[in-house]
Amino acid sequence: MTFAAQILTLYPEMFPGPLGQSLAGRALSEGRWSCDTVQIRDFATDKHRSVDDTPAGGGAGMVLKPDVVAAAVDHALARQPDAPILAMTPRGRPLTQERVRALAAGPGVTILCGRFEGFDERLFEARPVEPVSIGDYVLSGGETAAIVLLDACIRLLPGVMGAASSGDEESFESGLLEYPHYTRPVEWEGRTIPEVLRSGDHAKIAAWRKQRAEEDTRLRRPDLWERHSGARDQSPSGAQREKKKDR
Amino acid sequence: MTFAAQILTLYPEMFPGPLGQSLAGRALSEGRWSCDTVQIRDFATDKHRSVDDTPAGGGAGMVLKPDVVAAAVDHALARQPDAPILAMTPRGRPLTQERVRALAAGPGVTILCGRFEGFDERLFEARPVEPVSIGDYVLSGGETAAIVLLDACIRLLPGVMGAASSGDEESFESGLLEYPHYTRPVEWEGRTIPEVLRSGDHAKIAAWRKQRAEEDTRLRRPDLWERHSGARDQSPSGAQREKKKDR
Repeated sequence: MTFAAQILTLYPEMFPGPLGQSLAGRALSEGRWSCDTVQIRDFATDKHRSVDDTPAGGGAGMVLKPDVVAAAVDHALARQPDAPILAMTPRGRPLTQERVRALAAGPGVTILCGRFEGFDERLFEARPVEPVSIGDYVLSGGETAAIVLLDACIRLLPGVMGAASSGDEESFESGLLEYPHYTRPVEWEGRTIPEVLRSGDHAKIAAWRKQRAEEDTRLRRPDLWERHSGARDQSPSGAQREKKKDR
Repeated sequence: MTFAAQILTLYPEMFPGPLGQSLAGRALSEGRWSCDTVQIRDFATDKHRSVDDTPAGGGAGMVLKPDVVAAAVDHALARQPDAPILAMTPRGRPLTQERVRALAAGPGVTILCGRFEGFDERLFEARPVEPVSIGDYVLSGGETAAIVLLDACIRLLPGVMGAASSGDEESFESGLLEYPHYTRPVEWEGRTIPEVLRSGDHAKIAAWRKQRAEEDTRLRRPDLWERHSGARDQSPSGAQREKKKDR
């Protein structure tokens, strides 16, 4: 099955961009995902092909016109009715690895890329468009965020990573940062690989990694750690986790 | 002054990629920033030009060799001694708009892009490399994260956005999400622009926007809201905020 990425943008020439190379590029040429762009400007209705207008109430910048964007969304929805429509905006719900995994398991994704000051808020009431944020910073447009979202999804598609790298142990899969890695040389600039990792004792190694993942999460990301230990305390049976998935 | 971006990567052909277009592309051709890549593989020392090896202690995937990566970092450091070196990794400190602003005000940035399972942890002890994360999800490599980081920085460089769009009111600048936007048509599909925004009363408009920014942050991002109100409660004088900037 091909994961269908449909991107609504004013800059279609940005795609597939870096996703045309390396892991994602190989997957694209193997037909594991497809990359279609929709030029938002094609849905403008005036002779200047305007896509934006000044913000109501005044202020800097321009806002994407709801009628033009909605027409582009309707077109995308007709072409791919089953894919969720995500709009990249810093006002959106933060992207998580859990969401990435859910998207990658589906038929594809339609991504709406904003520019300028962003979208007219009525769009989110009038169309099934979900605002999503990749982080707490501001970009020049949604395109680079869309590339990140797609990169995260594509690597999880069947056959893209080797079976050996299923990603089960990586960051966020268990609500924790991943443990630190080491490789040869055993001694480098006077620094040696932790002895336990060279012991060959698989149980000890697993225990050390778990401990380091917990310790690093607690120290570096108290926010993640709090959510992790909170969820664990409230649901020794794992019920909380299941419930969260159902939303 | 040109903001110098130096990217250490196994995929130099991914750059400038989407940053060669639109706002960032124009700024690149105007010399407001420069984009240099360093091929990490050029610093391999064996005849196979190996850059990675199996993880100590076992497990899936490959880890970037510390000696090879350190040699690439040393090269980058010699070329650009004043720029901070950031390694893109989900184990890193979350990127914030505050950090983006600080980077954009500096001479440039050197970005180290990981691949495979990531970096040997000793690299972070042996070199002044700061791990940075753009969000709680996993990418196929640091390249798309680097593109996002650069996009965020470049738009803030002098002359890149119009003076009118200084970004003072946008998301995260005050620790809040930005208020929602509206533009013409005034009535669209039975939905009208909130009346206050059409009142012409600038004080009322400012009050409405502040209230909506606070309300949306509280509802959508309780984590941001807690930090915002916590900082405010502890420092009516704004001392906390100043102190935070000094770190």
